[in-house]
Amino acid sequence: MAKDFTKRSEDYSKWYNELVLRADMAENSDVRGCMVIKPYGYAIWETMQATLDKMFKDTGHVNAYFPLFIPKSFLSKEASHIEGFAKECAVVTHYRLINSPDGKGVIVDPDAKLEEELIVRPTSETIIWNTYRGWIQSYRDLPLLINQWANVVRWEMRTRLFLRTAEFLWQEGHTAHVTAKEAVIETEKMLNVYADFAENWLAMPVVKGIKTANERFAGALETYCIEAMMQDGKALQAGTSHFLGQNFAKAFDVKFSTKEGVQEYVWATSWGVSTRLIGALIMTHSDDNGLVLPPKLAPTQVVIVPIYKTEEQLQAISEKALAIKKQLEAKGIRVKFDDRDNQSPGWKFSEYEFKGVPLRIAIGPRDMENGTVELARRDTLTKSFHKQEELENLVPSLLEEIQQSLFDKALKLREDNTHKVDTFEEFKTLLEKGSFLLAHWDGTPETEDKIKDETKATIRCIPLDNALEDGVCIYSGKPSKQRVLFARAY
Amino acid sequence: MAKDFTKRSEDYSKWYNELVLRADMAENSDVRGCMVIKPYGYAIWETMQATLDKMFKDTGHVNAYFPLFIPKSFLSKEASHIEGFAKECAVVTHYRLINSPDGKGVIVDPDAKLEEELIVRPTSETIIWNTYRGWIQSYRDLPLLINQWANVVRWEMRTRLFLRTAEFLWQEGHTAHVTAKEAVIETEKMLNVYADFAENWLAMPVVKGIKTANERFAGALETYCIEAMMQDGKALQAGTSHFLGQNFAKAFDVKFSTKEGVQEYVWATSWGVSTRLIGALIMTHSDDNGLVLPPKLAPTQVVIVPIYKTEEQLQAISEKALAIKKQLEAKGIRVKFDDRDNQSPGWKFSEYEFKGVPLRIAIGPRDMENGTVELARRDTLTKSFHKQEELENLVPSLLEEIQQSLFDKALKLREDNTHKVDTFEEFKTLLEKGSFLLAHWDGTPETEDKIKDETKATIRCIPLDNALEDGVCIYSGKPSKQRVLFARAY
Repeated sequence: MAKDFTKRSEDYSKWYNELVLRADMAENSDVRGCMVIKPYGYAIWETMQATLDKMFKDTGHVNAYFPLFIPKSFLSKEASHIEGFAKECAVVTHYRLINSPDGKGVIVDPDAKLEEELIVRPTSETIIWNTYRGWIQSYRDLPLLINQWANVVRWEMRTRLFLRTAEFLWQEGHTAHVTAKEAVIETEKMLNVYADFAENWLAMPVVKGIKTANERFAGALETYCIEAMMQDGKALQAGTSHFLGQNFAKAFDVKFSTKEGVQEYVWATSWGVSTRLIGALIMTHSDDNGLVLPPKLAPTQVVIVPIYKTEEQLQAISEKALAIKKQLEAKGIRVKFDDRDNQSPGWKFSEYEFKGVPLRIAIGPRDMENGTVELARRDTLTKSFHKQEELENLVPSLLEEIQQSLFDKALKLREDNTHKVDTFEEFKTLLEKGSFLLAHWDGTPETEDKIKDETKATIRCIPLDNALEDGVCIYSGKPSKQRVLFARAY
Repeated sequence: MAKDFTKRSEDYSKWYNELVLRADMAENSDVRGCMVIKPYGYAIWETMQATLDKMFKDTGHVNAYFPLFIPKSFLSKEASHIEGFAKECAVVTHYRLINSPDGKGVIVDPDAKLEEELIVRPTSETIIWNTYRGWIQSYRDLPLLINQWANVVRWEMRTRLFLRTAEFLWQEGHTAHVTAKEAVIETEKMLNVYADFAENWLAMPVVKGIKTANERFAGALETYCIEAMMQDGKALQAGTSHFLGQNFAKAFDVKFSTKEGVQEYVWATSWGVSTRLIGALIMTHSDDNGLVLPPKLAPTQVVIVPIYKTEEQLQAISEKALAIKKQLEAKGIRVKFDDRDNQSPGWKFSEYEFKGVPLRIAIGPRDMENGTVELARRDTLTKSFHKQEELENLVPSLLEEIQQSLFDKALKLREDNTHKVDTFEEFKTLLEKGSFLLAHWDGTPETEDKIKDETKATIRCIPLDNALEDGVCIYSGKPSKQRVLFARAY
């Protein structure tokens, strides 16, 4: 058990913050709300990026890069967009500093005021659709399937590392289509890519669904989402995919001529996931001993620690360890051999346990005599002894097993804490325990708001696979055709 | 020859701008000085990134991410740094927009003024060294070898796509070391990585050298650089690696305790290359028919174009083409089969020629009868016929040959246009022709400035492999120990 480390049961939020800092994932910077992503956290983001990027390319998308700045006037062009975004944002008003007259540092040059202020992008629909106007003339130019990897800024007042920061890293896909139907198919396709990634890489089960009007992206006709349950029973929105209709095409006058030569507005989608996924990853699997990482995303999947007293012992162990490392690396496994001599094996064990390395192999002098190793699993904290020659086949299958086992455990947690409720009393009671609640709702934003005000629970989504079922709204008693998913959320 | 396309001999600068636009590499956005990098240009950047990233990791570096914003006061902490940077930059002064009282759009909320303005990073030494203070306590924490992939902003007044834009993409390495010697070794190591990348991937020969005090990075003790000759004889600085001494450690109070327990300031380096390299790539190899790309960086290395009249012909050709594609892809070659039926073969030939695809394979009905293909090389514009079964071995070796041939051609251009000069008259005459000039200089910034004022030529570098040689300064007539490299530059 890591020393002086808050337990989840004591204070989940404090546990999370301590974990992120102590595992060297990220830290707060001296710039309000902006984080520094440290190498260990960034390595996870790099694997996420590479994996998603391949998935996007396999589904026909290409990458491009659009400006960081958006002219203020662009934000007003799509009426509902400006309401939802661009209120809390970083505004560039000047473009020069000059030496301070008092000789101390620099001041903003009052003569270098921009004619029109620039907004640091909170999302890029406006600047991208302004650009697409020049790129799309004919149906031959469609579909346009573009993704961007970028940083964005939203001036959040209360920030938490990875989960909510003023600046964060993300990808945003922006596609353009001939028909509404094609755009909806794209929206759903990318939702499925996200769900696939969440479940098969993060080992995090998700509910796929559609947002209510209240929770919809500003400027979208329909927002699809994936929602995951964290260990405290709260929901985390892990990715969204928006069907934007013709809203942005109309706002930025993007038309194409059809095969028949008619001018029509283009249909749009946008979709994104961010460094928030790292927060989701942490809160899904980690425990009171620190990080637990699914093998597919662990920067180091296997660490080998030598246990020795003499230089000769180290040399013999190193030779064996490097042979094992090479063997495993040939199978595509990320292995680290930690032969630093300024830290004890015990220190190293704690370190890698805290940092969530899925498998630890220890080799001592007796192992060398017996041709064995000690193998420790991070997820179960169990140890076992194996013949050295078994490792080549055992390690890959164990990594798969861990990946699956983490998913199963997370799924069980969600299933155990998802309930159908039919009364508002039951709703409130179960909510306190941390639950996903499937309940009838009368379909009005008013009722949704009232439930939120009274309980802090929001409708996370209308699940895609929802069965239709007659019932009455738990709050208003009015008739309802289906249950929706309520939870408190990050 | 591409229609309505400016020739290099007519107007090199116009040729460049047209090329970037017509080859779909990038375009200017509606945000002053900021470019949109289009998918074709971005694909080249992605290959550059992936290649460099691997080179950085192979030399022990890891990636991290630091904030986009820098508090204004940070910039003043290193005296010479603020003089060189942070004057022309984007300044964030407010963090909120509100609805305009006249109901038209949004205005900046006067009540949401930041206490301290934030600067959009022009480079990250200050924010990173402010962070390193918390990361470095002991010699055990060193060396710290970190790289960042990021966007940066410098408010340039005259911008050109890729070469000089207000926002650009780059990587910046920031390392911390125990001794000055170790930091210098790192500075030189990364210069060599850049030179290796420029020569072996961009096929662009470079001169490695050291900048004079005038041209040194603001805050560095020594700036190393690689300089390449463009086709017009002008120089382009393609990458820099800085030995920063203890300047930033002192400015941000970053000390470590040595093995002996003494507190010392840390030694630093920083090094970077940017999307500017894409401009260098274009100006090194491209011609009056459009882009010429070295195979290693070409998004598509081989394009296969079917020539057919009937549906049956297309089907037979497609089968063969896809078999060839599969065969070549198995060898790691990037192949595109363009069977679009809404463009003619002639149109496609022009298109891929303009976009610099290194090899084009055309297959028609007669080729199908004879088991042949027509193969066209983009660099030489030559065509040849080959048996289909030869392609598997021929194509990889041809791609290598093209890569080498582009390098050789660029090297010859540079050698033909590099001259030793001993008089200022000769200097001025040869400079007009577009040359690299090796000339004696008296070592003073004053002389350097005067030569620049009179000729627009700057000292690009003092070449690393310079032979010492007694001589007299071409301008002042004062004694000199070595020749330095002069040129006009981008």
